Amino acid sequence: MDISHIRDLLTRVQSGETDVDRAVQELKHLPYQNLSYARIDTHRALRTGISEVVYCQGKSAGQIAGIVSQMVETQVNIIATRISQEVYQHICGDFPDSEYYQEARIAVFNPEPVERKGHIAVVCAGTSDIPVAEEACITAQVLGGYVTRTYDVGVAGIHRLLDCCEDLYKANVAVVVAGMEGALASVVGGMVSCPVIAVPTSVGYGTSFNGITALLSMLNSCASGVSVVNIDNGFGAGYQATLINRLAIG
Amino acid sequence: MDISHIRDLLTRVQSGETDVDRAVQELKHLPYQNLSYARIDTHRALRTGISEVVYCQGKSAGQIAGIVSQMVETQVNIIATRISQEVYQHICGDFPDSEYYQEARIAVFNPEPVERKGHIAVVCAGTSDIPVAEEACITAQVLGGYVTRTYDVGVAGIHRLLDCCEDLYKANVAVVVAGMEGALASVVGGMVSCPVIAVPTSVGYGTSFNGITALLSMLNSCASGVSVVNIDNGFGAGYQATLINRLAIG
Amino acid sequence: MDISHIRDLLTRVQSGETDVDRAVQELKHLPYQNLSYARIDTHRALRTGISEVVYCQGKSAGQIAGIVSQMVETQVNIIATRISQEVYQHICGDFPDSEYYQEARIAVFNPEPVERKGHIAVVCAGTSDIPVAEEACITAQVLGGYVTRTYDVGVAGIHRLLDCCEDLYKANVAVVVAGMEGALASVVGGMVSCPVIAVPTSVGYGTSFNGITALLSMLNSCASGVSVVNIDNGFGAGYQATLINRLAIG
Amino acid sequence: MDISHIRDLLTRVQSGETDVDRAVQELKHLPYQNLSYARIDTHRALRTGISEVVYCQGKSAGQIAGIVSQMVETQVNIIATRISQEVYQHICGDFPDSEYYQEARIAVFNPEPVERKGHIAVVCAGTSDIPVAEEACITAQVLGGYVTRTYDVGVAGIHRLLDCCEDLYKANVAVVVAGMEGALASVVGGMVSCPVIAVPTSVGYGTSFNGITALLSMLNSCASGVSVVNIDNGFGAGYQATLINRLAIG
Amino acid sequence: MDISHIRDLLTRVQSGETDVDRAVQELKHLPYQNLSYARIDTHRALRTGISEVVYCQGKSAGQIAGIVSQMVETQVNIIATRISQEVYQHICGDFPDSEYYQEARIAVFNPEPVERKGHIAVVCAGTSDIPVAEEACITAQVLGGYVTRTYDVGVAGIHRLLDCCEDLYKANVAVVVAGMEGALASVVGGMVSCPVIAVPTSVGYGTSFNGITALLSMLNSCASGVSVVNIDNGFGAGYQATLINRLAIG
Amino acid sequence: MDISHIRDLLTRVQSGETDVDRAVQELKHLPYQNLSYARIDTHRALRTGISEVVYCQGKSAGQIAGIVSQMVETQVNIIATRISQEVYQHICGDFPDSEYYQEARIAVFNPEPVERKGHIAVVCAGTSDIPVAEEACITAQVLGGYVTRTYDVGVAGIHRLLDCCEDLYKANVAVVVAGMEGALASVVGGMVSCPVIAVPTSVGYGTSFNGITALLSMLNSCASGVSVVNIDNGFGAGYQATLINRLAIG
Amino acid sequence: MDISHIRDLLTRVQSGETDVDRAVQELKHLPYQNLSYARIDTHRALRTGISEVVYCQGKSAGQIAGIVSQMVETQVNIIATRISQEVYQHICGDFPDSEYYQEARIAVFNPEPVERKGHIAVVCAGTSDIPVAEEACITAQVLGGYVTRTYDVGVAGIHRLLDCCEDLYKANVAVVVAGMEGALASVVGGMVSCPVIAVPTSVGYGTSFNGITALLSMLNSCASGVSVVNIDNGFGAGYQATLINRLAIG
Amino acid sequence: MDISHIRDLLTRVQSGETDVDRAVQELKHLPYQNLSYARIDTHRALRTGISEVVYCQGKSAGQIAGIVSQMVETQVNIIATRISQEVYQHICGDFPDSEYYQEARIAVFNPEPVERKGHIAVVCAGTSDIPVAEEACITAQVLGGYVTRTYDVGVAGIHRLLDCCEDLYKANVAVVVAGMEGALASVVGGMVSCPVIAVPTSVGYGTSFNGITALLSMLNSCASGVSVVNIDNGFGAGYQATLINRLAIG
Repeated sequence: MDISHIRDLLTRVQSGETDVDRAVQELKHLPYQNLSYARIDTHRALRTGISEVVYCQGKSAGQIAGIVSQMVETQVNIIATRISQEVYQHICGDFPDSEYYQEARIAVFNPEPVERKGHIAVVCAGTSDIPVAEEACITAQVLGGYVTRTYDVGVAGIHRLLDCCEDLYKANVAVVVAGMEGALASVVGGMVSCPVIAVPTSVGYGTSFNGITALLSMLNSCASGVSVVNIDNGFGAGYQATLINRLAIG
Repeated sequence: MDISHIRDLLTRVQSGETDVDRAVQELKHLPYQNLSYARIDTHRALRTGISEVVYCQGKSAGQIAGIVSQMVETQVNIIATRISQEVYQHICGDFPDSEYYQEARIAVFNPEPVERKGHIAVVCAGTSDIPVAEEACITAQVLGGYVTRTYDVGVAGIHRLLDCCEDLYKANVAVVVAGMEGALASVVGGMVSCPVIAVPTSVGYGTSFNGITALLSMLNSCASGVSVVNIDNGFGAGYQATLINRLAIG
Repeated sequence: MDISHIRDLLTRVQSGETDVDRAVQELKHLPYQNLSYARIDTHRALRTGISEVVYCQGKSAGQIAGIVSQMVETQVNIIATRISQEVYQHICGDFPDSEYYQEARIAVFNPEPVERKGHIAVVCAGTSDIPVAEEACITAQVLGGYVTRTYDVGVAGIHRLLDCCEDLYKANVAVVVAGMEGALASVVGGMVSCPVIAVPTSVGYGTSFNGITALLSMLNSCASGVSVVNIDNGFGAGYQATLINRLAIG
Repeated sequence: MDISHIRDLLTRVQSGETDVDRAVQELKHLPYQNLSYARIDTHRALRTGISEVVYCQGKSAGQIAGIVSQMVETQVNIIATRISQEVYQHICGDFPDSEYYQEARIAVFNPEPVERKGHIAVVCAGTSDIPVAEEACITAQVLGGYVTRTYDVGVAGIHRLLDCCEDLYKANVAVVVAGMEGALASVVGGMVSCPVIAVPTSVGYGTSFNGITALLSMLNSCASGVSVVNIDNGFGAGYQATLINRLAIG
Repeated sequence: MDISHIRDLLTRVQSGETDVDRAVQELKHLPYQNLSYARIDTHRALRTGISEVVYCQGKSAGQIAGIVSQMVETQVNIIATRISQEVYQHICGDFPDSEYYQEARIAVFNPEPVERKGHIAVVCAGTSDIPVAEEACITAQVLGGYVTRTYDVGVAGIHRLLDCCEDLYKANVAVVVAGMEGALASVVGGMVSCPVIAVPTSVGYGTSFNGITALLSMLNSCASGVSVVNIDNGFGAGYQATLINRLAIG
Repeated sequence: MDISHIRDLLTRVQSGETDVDRAVQELKHLPYQNLSYARIDTHRALRTGISEVVYCQGKSAGQIAGIVSQMVETQVNIIATRISQEVYQHICGDFPDSEYYQEARIAVFNPEPVERKGHIAVVCAGTSDIPVAEEACITAQVLGGYVTRTYDVGVAGIHRLLDCCEDLYKANVAVVVAGMEGALASVVGGMVSCPVIAVPTSVGYGTSFNGITALLSMLNSCASGVSVVNIDNGFGAGYQATLINRLAIG
Repeated sequence: MDISHIRDLLTRVQSGETDVDRAVQELKHLPYQNLSYARIDTHRALRTGISEVVYCQGKSAGQIAGIVSQMVETQVNIIATRISQEVYQHICGDFPDSEYYQEARIAVFNPEPVERKGHIAVVCAGTSDIPVAEEACITAQVLGGYVTRTYDVGVAGIHRLLDCCEDLYKANVAVVVAGMEGALASVVGGMVSCPVIAVPTSVGYGTSFNGITALLSMLNSCASGVSVVNIDNGFGAGYQATLINRLAIG
Repeated sequence: MDISHIRDLLTRVQSGETDVDRAVQELKHLPYQNLSYARIDTHRALRTGISEVVYCQGKSAGQIAGIVSQMVETQVNIIATRISQEVYQHICGDFPDSEYYQEARIAVFNPEPVERKGHIAVVCAGTSDIPVAEEACITAQVLGGYVTRTYDVGVAGIHRLLDCCEDLYKANVAVVVAGMEGALASVVGGMVSCPVIAVPTSVGYGTSFNGITALLSMLNSCASGVSVVNIDNGFGAGYQATLINRLAIG
């Protein structure tokens, strides 16, 4: 119920069409139904193409299929993250059209081509960080960003990173994915003038503590302009990068 | 703005006293002003005597005085927690009436006698836990509970606790305050049939880790019916105990 | 041995029916058998219907069956928690009557209908928190509470919570179940005037640390009236809620 | 040395003005002096007005004065963060013009008016979070953003936040500052469609662990679009918000 | 009230001297007064000379003086631990006789010579560990043990330890005090056949974590026969060593 | 090489039977071969019956069989701990005589009856703690102690513990085994006058952190006379208890 | 492109063979290709025989085979670490020559005999530490060091270590591998005058925390001259030891 | 007592000058006095010029003066670390000659010029890391190394590091000192072929955790050839670097 509905209601009260008791009753639920953030929530999907994302970890194939079933009727490019190939194959027959990105563990239901605008640079330190990086890439691509990938450029051989900084300089936002000591975020953060979203990964052993070391390292980056998302949260980084990229491309 | 205000407004619209545009304007802010939880928030103080509590730690004497000044005009028994004697003495001259509980570090502005109903038992393990226990006691007393204190009954001499279990058996709710290994919560929890609110304290040294050990111990209590608040949070326990006690006394 | 037994014994001594030596012998074990908390322990089950609960994790099917076998002779509505479907199916044939709640992983042996009185609201943040929430619900229901469920109302879409606050306002006590950042406890705590029992769950990944983040968040709730139980401890929350609810319904 | 300098050098070699040995010598240091990121580093300050920021914590008044002395010759709006009033007063006489923001603990040397463009919303949960929030605000303002402040809107009284969401909806980026359980980041993140930069603060006690709880809570936000900076790092959030805001305003 | 008192009471009932009602009344408090552990508690001091020890940290001079005042009337060699010289000097005038051990921060009120029997070896790794070691030594001496001190024998120069192993071989129990990496406990544990009580100290810096590293090291000792007390808990080690030594000397 | 060997050597030098060069050569290795602790090490097994114990975790069946093979030639009652039934059954055929204690996961090779002297009380809190308690029991029994078991006496029903304190009062040393909040160690420590060896177990869930909570609780016991071994280290506790018991029985 | 290539280029410009534009183009990539650290990187393999090492954990057999395939064309003694026997057997057929060291989990492709010079002592505390120790040994051997192994010399029986210190005294560098309490590093560090590289292992249980205790112990070694690598990082220790040994042998 | 003393003794026995009993007596203490590591310990100072270093933290001025007094009689260049200027000034009058390095907090008693040989590069990330770096530098210089300092070259502006890599390439060993995220160790480790000793510093705030983040980052360095010492342990790094440098210069 938005402002025009309220106006209608009041007009009906004014005209006597609706009596006061009934209007009170209708308005009683107003605070919840008419909350601007809820309305925006709904509008946002239509306006931006970012429909609700389905986080599949910890949900059964049945639950996922049920949720997606409701969404496919009205939405396109529905993103399902952390969905294993097994689960995808189990449920994809239920839907007319879908795509699966194996490394990123992302499925897109009702896929529709989107125009990709605005550069988003995704950089990762090692081969083992690629699945998380891909989750960021696919997320950003499906949501309309133009993504460049720069993989395996860890700081132990920093010249490899320098070779590809052209992509970094063109980007509206950079996503830096690294495990172990996570130093790549600081080095990239010191090189670029765009915002950097750092994603620690659980890659490493011993005192890497499944990504805690990389996380702490990134939070303490001596370079300004670096903010951080949860360990292995490639989706979150791709989403945040999308929001920033959209601001840049107007 | 509550339901009666809305009814008034609608009646004025119905009668033509207020036109639709103006009513829309008034209702526009309705969701926030009229949200039932906000309304309840305001009503709760009137109904229950629990006015907003002022948490003084990290606030300057000036800030505290300012906040209390606003409240004293309409409310009684305003509780200010974690207020040092210095700060209290600095500001108490600004107010017509107040009381200070030194051990509990609580001040009450506009104090009014309240009828104390329903037993709340506050138990603590050692002498050093008393300030936290007192914070719980004063909170619960000012909010209308009848509080019994059982102090220095740590489990190393468990017979001391057994000597005073009469108070425990009469209580609607027990607050157990302990530092070090926090075992008292489990022992009391195994003895009583009422809910137990456990408060870990930062009393101890070395691996007591300023209350973390007691907290963990209490969270893992082998006795059912024990829930836990933050370290040294005597106020929180006294407040929670009050809510439970009020349910008991109807 | 309770007070009337002691009186009997003394009377028999007085009358010469029992001699002093024998009486000394009987009284020698008195401190343990006659401890009021032990006596209460036994009476509590009869009086309140809360018989000893069997915590099945880490026990073999044989051990569980053995314990339940002893209890079924004298008790009804025996709750067995954390019992897997496999174990339940393995042992349920040994007992005349039982029920299994799969999502809650709870079995009830010798189930008897109980009158459900007093509202207990159980709220959870996400779909993955439901098993823990159900453990709280079933516990509270079997122990005689009237439970309302409000699931999947995480704070990322706070209007969903606002839509269902009617149940919250009617409750004597609210159980809030959430993983990840556990913010739901604070939001609910700020909305209601009843006690809130918060249950952190191990739902999440990376720095959710299997529920530690939610636990810490709940312990530091800026809302008063929130206390916390162990991670995933749905039973503990349902039990504590029952104790509070019983106080409320007199 | 940039591309045009290289061209000059080569032309001089071609013409015989410079011999090969000398050119080799000059080019030997080329990789370091001519690195594009270093050049950009210098250009960035000129182009964007973001000169090197002086982080004063752990530096003596003498060291700070020395660093600023070098910068004031060529730069305006030099930001010095974490500078105490004592240190500022000790050194401000050495410089022709400066401003001090006490709550933010920021000094600006050679202050020059900047046109403020693009909305940045800074929101904080409690009164004690204000110093960190102000550090973000002043940083963003000096760097050219139009900042709106929404303070003391913690989730325990969520209607206060709802009252001021207009500012949030206009913002290109939101900075959310909160201690204790840090739930505000999730609630704001669920309300807005712009990127959210969350700043945990060390406000709290006991298990707030000087900001760790808020940090973990924010990293695990159930709302997408939230990234996090270090505890109490108001500057970092203001800086990151500036980068994003500049993208938005083109 | 012990068994003989019960017999008296029963005899009085038998003889009619005491009626049943009165006997019931007397027996009502029996469980608490007559609990064997409580009785033992009282008897223990008389039998073993270990009166209740006063832990002074976190208690005011007044509180300490009050507690000691009660004890001096009936007990000798009353040990007060963690008592600063200032506090001791403040209160020692109130008592006829006392001794203060500065390094150990222990005061003994009503000191009486005790015969020292049975060897207890106290070993520490570095000069900075001596205060904790002395707390163990004085505790053990006052409680009647014959203590040998072997200080500054850290494993970095293991020959220093080997030079003094004669004392170790004579001991009934060894107390090993060490900070930093705490390796001394393992080395001593591998050398002796008596029980070793290890005391981690908060000596060290950085990752010594105020004794946690030494604690963990000692808990993981590859030598059998090592058990551990809390960080800096010299008293606890001296007390435990006393219990063991007394067993040895019969 | 012990003192008598040195004397022999010197006598041979004196008599000219051995020349100086050869004697230097022999003495060169003396420091290592003649170290008293090494000698004691060897003698200890003969004197006390405590032969080297084989810790089997992380060793293959082959490695274990190899080690035991060497030992069986000269020793009896060889204890192998943490040996699974599978591994035991795989290797037991290689040896003439052996016993396997399934719950304790201990095998004894070349078992010989030992006279059991001196009471050792082993107490545990819950059914799930029994395997660790049994490891302590079997260790202590094989090493010659008379062990009494008191199981499932957690503090939530403290009267169960009181019922069996007779065994505790007779013991020279008590081993207390508990998981969850580990409060049993404090309660027992407050009841007995003998040394208490506390063993935290990894029993529990959530914030029990696989035994860390119990460990911390035990280290911070408010009862004196409690020392602690590593989590689940039943063997270590049984071994330490044996050393203490042997002192007691002379 | 190294200095001689730059000289060639400049000479061609001087002679007119290459024009300025083309030379600018070639030099444009110079900073990255000609960076001395990159150049050294390439030269180092040729000069020292340390080619890039392939870390196989987290890489598929296909990925490993692909990487090795590229390397075998130009390099010998290619080290692949953390490669399981299954993976090795899966891919070794693709290459003409290779060796597999099972305990060390290292494969060497294109193995060529290397002259072993300079003593490196590798010492480990227990049998379970051997795989990590072997990773260090094989690494150091393939890279040209002469390695002596001293295994199972934990400090619980320190005479075992003393028996073999000859190897330690000859070494240019010692690698000490230990789990549990990691005390061996301190004891060896106190005995030798060469640098010690300590490797904590994840051997142990309970509070060994998978190597954290050993790591902390080693970082806090009371012996100077000890530095530490990551938990279980035998390769890193062997590599660091090689660098040091090469310095020693000139 | 070394080999020549043993030979003397044996010769005296052979000649009858010393009888067997007396020789046994003398040899009885041999194992400890004659242990090669003890002997080496003494000889090392004479041979290498590294006398025992006095760690002053936690020692009183009196204790330090006492220790140094013993050493100055026989040794030169006695290093006292972590000695405050106040303590130094308090005691320096007691000694004929000494030097104080304020930033490094090191005093050298009986200073003697040493020939500095072999390059040691000390690099630090920020201005606040300089005290720790200086502790490493002064240690290495006094012990005879030629030290080059490269300060304030954090990875946020990596070109600053590249400008000064000449010093790094000449070094036998590099000491890298960094706080915050500690990424400099990885970047330097990827650039050089010599061993790198990394020193985490406690510089930073919030999640830098007083150096833990830098420590973890360095332990997880993706560059090989990096080993780590304790937080702020500049002395340890300088000492380890000295040992390596001495190997290099033969």
